[in-house]
Amino acid sequence: MNFADKIRQAKQRNNSILCLGLDPDPALMPGVSLIDFNKAIVDATSDIVCTYKPNLAFYEALGIEGLTALQETVKYIPDHIPIIGDAKRGDIGNTARAYAAALFDNFAFDAVTVNPYMGYDSIEPFINYADKGVFVLCRTSNAGAMDFQDLSCRSQEADSRLQPLFKIVAQKAAEWNKQGNIGLVVGATYPRELAELRLLCPDMLFLVPGIGAQGGDLSQAVHYGMGAEGGAIFNSSRQILYASKGADFAKAARQAAEELRCQINSLIPG
Amino acid sequence: MNFADKIRQAKQRNNSILCLGLDPDPALMPGVSLIDFNKAIVDATSDIVCTYKPNLAFYEALGIEGLTALQETVKYIPDHIPIIGDAKRGDIGNTARAYAAALFDNFAFDAVTVNPYMGYDSIEPFINYADKGVFVLCRTSNAGAMDFQDLSCRSQEADSRLQPLFKIVAQKAAEWNKQGNIGLVVGATYPRELAELRLLCPDMLFLVPGIGAQGGDLSQAVHYGMGAEGGAIFNSSRQILYASKGADFAKAARQAAEELRCQINSLIPG
Repeated sequence: MNFADKIRQAKQRNNSILCLGLDPDPALMPGVSLIDFNKAIVDATSDIVCTYKPNLAFYEALGIEGLTALQETVKYIPDHIPIIGDAKRGDIGNTARAYAAALFDNFAFDAVTVNPYMGYDSIEPFINYADKGVFVLCRTSNAGAMDFQDLSCRSQEADSRLQPLFKIVAQKAAEWNKQGNIGLVVGATYPRELAELRLLCPDMLFLVPGIGAQGGDLSQAVHYGMGAEGGAIFNSSRQILYASKGADFAKAARQAAEELRCQINSLIPG
Repeated sequence: MNFADKIRQAKQRNNSILCLGLDPDPALMPGVSLIDFNKAIVDATSDIVCTYKPNLAFYEALGIEGLTALQETVKYIPDHIPIIGDAKRGDIGNTARAYAAALFDNFAFDAVTVNPYMGYDSIEPFINYADKGVFVLCRTSNAGAMDFQDLSCRSQEADSRLQPLFKIVAQKAAEWNKQGNIGLVVGATYPRELAELRLLCPDMLFLVPGIGAQGGDLSQAVHYGMGAEGGAIFNSSRQILYASKGADFAKAARQAAEELRCQINSLIPG
């Protein structure tokens, strides 16, 4: 089953467009092992979320042990819930092929995030996996996003208008989306940009981080992110994972996830 | 010792500005284990190169075993040769901190490569390691580089001129270089851009990939890349590693590295 179908089914099954970021931070975690933490979180939330999104940085920071726990976590997550490997990779063609093999073949992620700075040949090896999803970083949720993503640029075509880099990235991603497996990462922290991108790419799936701990306004994000064929999924990590640091962490995570799912669902237009 | 001093000493000691990319490809390697291959290559070249640059993609593609071999390789490389972890990471602040810990604390690389698309807060956690080197992707060596890096952009400052994105990245990197530990990745395949960047950032160290297998013109790359305070190091991977697929692979790699070192040295102006 391809990623689009898998996520569609997971959304329906759990009546959810909530993505849970599995980002383990030993400083915030209760005193259990990483794999036990992840298993307890998955057990507590797999009927509430539509996808899990482990960010590889947090596992790499824990060394080989962390990466082994990530492998185990991927195996543990029920088959019907797709997993997005948040890796933000990007490299020249033959190297990007190696990254795609690492993420899709070894880790068996259903989708990944990639960085567009190096252009088409850095993304092509990922989109060639037609059954997998590829989320291209477009307008990210952090403060530094404006350093380059917001620069006014002239696209290569005979077009004298200036437009922000992130819109040109979105247009290119849409152009490259021959297999229908490309989505965009668009931060909830910039609702105006989210709205503009929704108009520009009505049929692409948006992965929207930045709600919760990062401070994005949820109602605006849902309002502007949804309402088109492509739909959107909304990621939260810390707000759910670390709802409690006590022995009740899984129960607290379930409650936080359930509240957020309902809150998001109540905001979906129409 | 900080990265700048370490690489300066290694350059002098080995009379070399050659960086050897340790990018294992099972399809091209002779029939030995990855760690034996790397150890033999290091034994054969550690008096010829000024730095090693393993690209993490090739190790990740080999799974946990590959990453364990990378750890062993880093430990095996003589202390006086600095190691650049070519990871091209970039993520929001707290995640970038985890990547910096993975690369600088766990792997103990002396320097890394990072992707600028997400802006300052995605790079800051790396440059905060004042003793480590941080090479920012600027104008890369691949064909896709022109998709976004060459776009004509207006910088945020009150400046109406349009200039290519990669130059704005270079200017920002120079501005962020308060600790003196930022360098730029500039592909050899675009000598004109290399020359322009050299004028723009005379005192930054350039990491120049794309000679050899990628087809960059070596004499132009050395001519335009050098000649300033910052200097440059030139990376080759496949041309050296896979000079022979037979039992004599290490000897052939030594010979290829030695030839390339001499060729580069003969092209240094002045």
